[in-house]
Amino acid sequence: MNEVAHVVAVLGRVVIDADEPVVTANDLGLTRGDGCFDSARVVTDATGAARVVDPDGHLDRLACSAQAMAIGNPSRDQWRGLVAEAQAGRSTPGEAVLKLVLTRGREWRAVGPTAIVTITHRWPWSATGDGAGEASRTITAVTLSRGHPSDAFADAPWLLGGIKTLSHVVNAAAAREAQRRGADDVIFKTTDGYALEGPTSGLLLARAGAFISTPTGGTGILESLTVASLLEAARADGFATGYELVPVDHLYTADALWLVSSGRGPVLVTTLDGRTLRADPDLASRVTRYAGF
Amino acid sequence: MNEVAHVVAVLGRVVIDADEPVVTANDLGLTRGDGCFDSARVVTDATGAARVVDPDGHLDRLACSAQAMAIGNPSRDQWRGLVAEAQAGRSTPGEAVLKLVLTRGREWRAVGPTAIVTITHRWPWSATGDGAGEASRTITAVTLSRGHPSDAFADAPWLLGGIKTLSHVVNAAAAREAQRRGADDVIFKTTDGYALEGPTSGLLLARAGAFISTPTGGTGILESLTVASLLEAARADGFATGYELVPVDHLYTADALWLVSSGRGPVLVTTLDGRTLRADPDLASRVTRYAGF
Repeated sequence: MNEVAHVVAVLGRVVIDADEPVVTANDLGLTRGDGCFDSARVVTDATGAARVVDPDGHLDRLACSAQAMAIGNPSRDQWRGLVAEAQAGRSTPGEAVLKLVLTRGREWRAVGPTAIVTITHRWPWSATGDGAGEASRTITAVTLSRGHPSDAFADAPWLLGGIKTLSHVVNAAAAREAQRRGADDVIFKTTDGYALEGPTSGLLLARAGAFISTPTGGTGILESLTVASLLEAARADGFATGYELVPVDHLYTADALWLVSSGRGPVLVTTLDGRTLRADPDLASRVTRYAGF
Repeated sequence: MNEVAHVVAVLGRVVIDADEPVVTANDLGLTRGDGCFDSARVVTDATGAARVVDPDGHLDRLACSAQAMAIGNPSRDQWRGLVAEAQAGRSTPGEAVLKLVLTRGREWRAVGPTAIVTITHRWPWSATGDGAGEASRTITAVTLSRGHPSDAFADAPWLLGGIKTLSHVVNAAAAREAQRRGADDVIFKTTDGYALEGPTSGLLLARAGAFISTPTGGTGILESLTVASLLEAARADGFATGYELVPVDHLYTADALWLVSSGRGPVLVTTLDGRTLRADPDLASRVTRYAGF
């Protein structure tokens, strides 16, 4: 399994051994986290046929990130070619995550941006959707300050709000803090008391018969493609939906609360800061269905 | 000159070609900016003998960063060995920057942290200290919001305030914003109106006969070893010194204002947000001397 668990394709080199170094010591993606990425779900059936979920949505978002950071983005065809090469390198049935990584390239060498595609097999609980899988689609979480007010990113494009940059270290440190507190994940909050998002996921809550997520823009929140498609499905199912600033207190009293990402879909938060949440089971199964998991 | 302009040594591989990739696609230093670094000044004389300025100060600070991030740090002897190998790879007289890079290592592979040392030749104006060099030891700057209040990092260690992490992309984006505005560099400010630091430098100002820098802690400001040694020299020269929160307005009316880093030393800010600063020449030459440049 190890040889198919992780596949790497690099622009200009195509598929390489996952143990082979791909980035030089002066690549700005390494030395400054100066690059962007995007991740998409990959579903591979029993015959080994693989399908990337919404590849164009993710390539569009990566193109937006690259443009906002003034990094030259490879063409759509170049990315598609790299993805196809990486997909050809694996056929393990189940769930995987496709990651597209783009760095500004090497300092003092005008060799252009570095573009890398990886496909990584996922842990089993999201692979099946059966009873056991459903049961583990729940997490505990803690709220942690993200250190900024809810309008910090308005009129400050240099703060790169809403962009999936490679400078992700606070997300990793917050995840470790959650573990230290005995929880599975984090919901970030602003210094003025509003809920933001998870370190690697969007936020969704059900409240008074509506599905609500949190807004991009001044908050610096990343647009979640999975939240957007999930809200669309909820609207089609007759629910009101919207994006609004949510006071942290509303999280504890929601009918249900989820963290949502393309790779693992929606996961239901059952406990927040040690307080048991309502976690309405009917809403939970609806949301899993809306997201196609 | 190209073959000595940039030298790379990697723990476990020693000195390698600067064009050779050193980091895999799943190294957390690349994918999440999950690592830390430190930089020191290297002075090489006409005979090719090189001296790192305050190597132990920088290795101490790197050890603090690694500890705060829970990354296993190589031993002091391993780092010294790597630095010696890198130094042996070059002998170009003049100024250079030693960079120590430590990442959390590879996801899904327990191979331990990645440790890299590079030495990079510096642009000429800081190499001489003669009249021409002095004249160009001045910059123009703009103030830009860092998006957080001045106490954002108090009691929030997961925000990694004060740590030189590899997640440096906002610094790079702010530098581009400065260029867009026709300035050389940036002084970050808080959302509540205080001065912080530069993207890659500490802040120093002279005001009412004292030298002042800005405080670490809740501000998230990085400790500057060069500012600390400079303030020590100023005290020995009879000046009052201190660290305090400085309202942005005080920058415009300072007797002199500097951005200070180990690589380029103190550079005098002559214009801030388009306003001409006092830039007292006697204070300027003292500070250059205090810093050993």
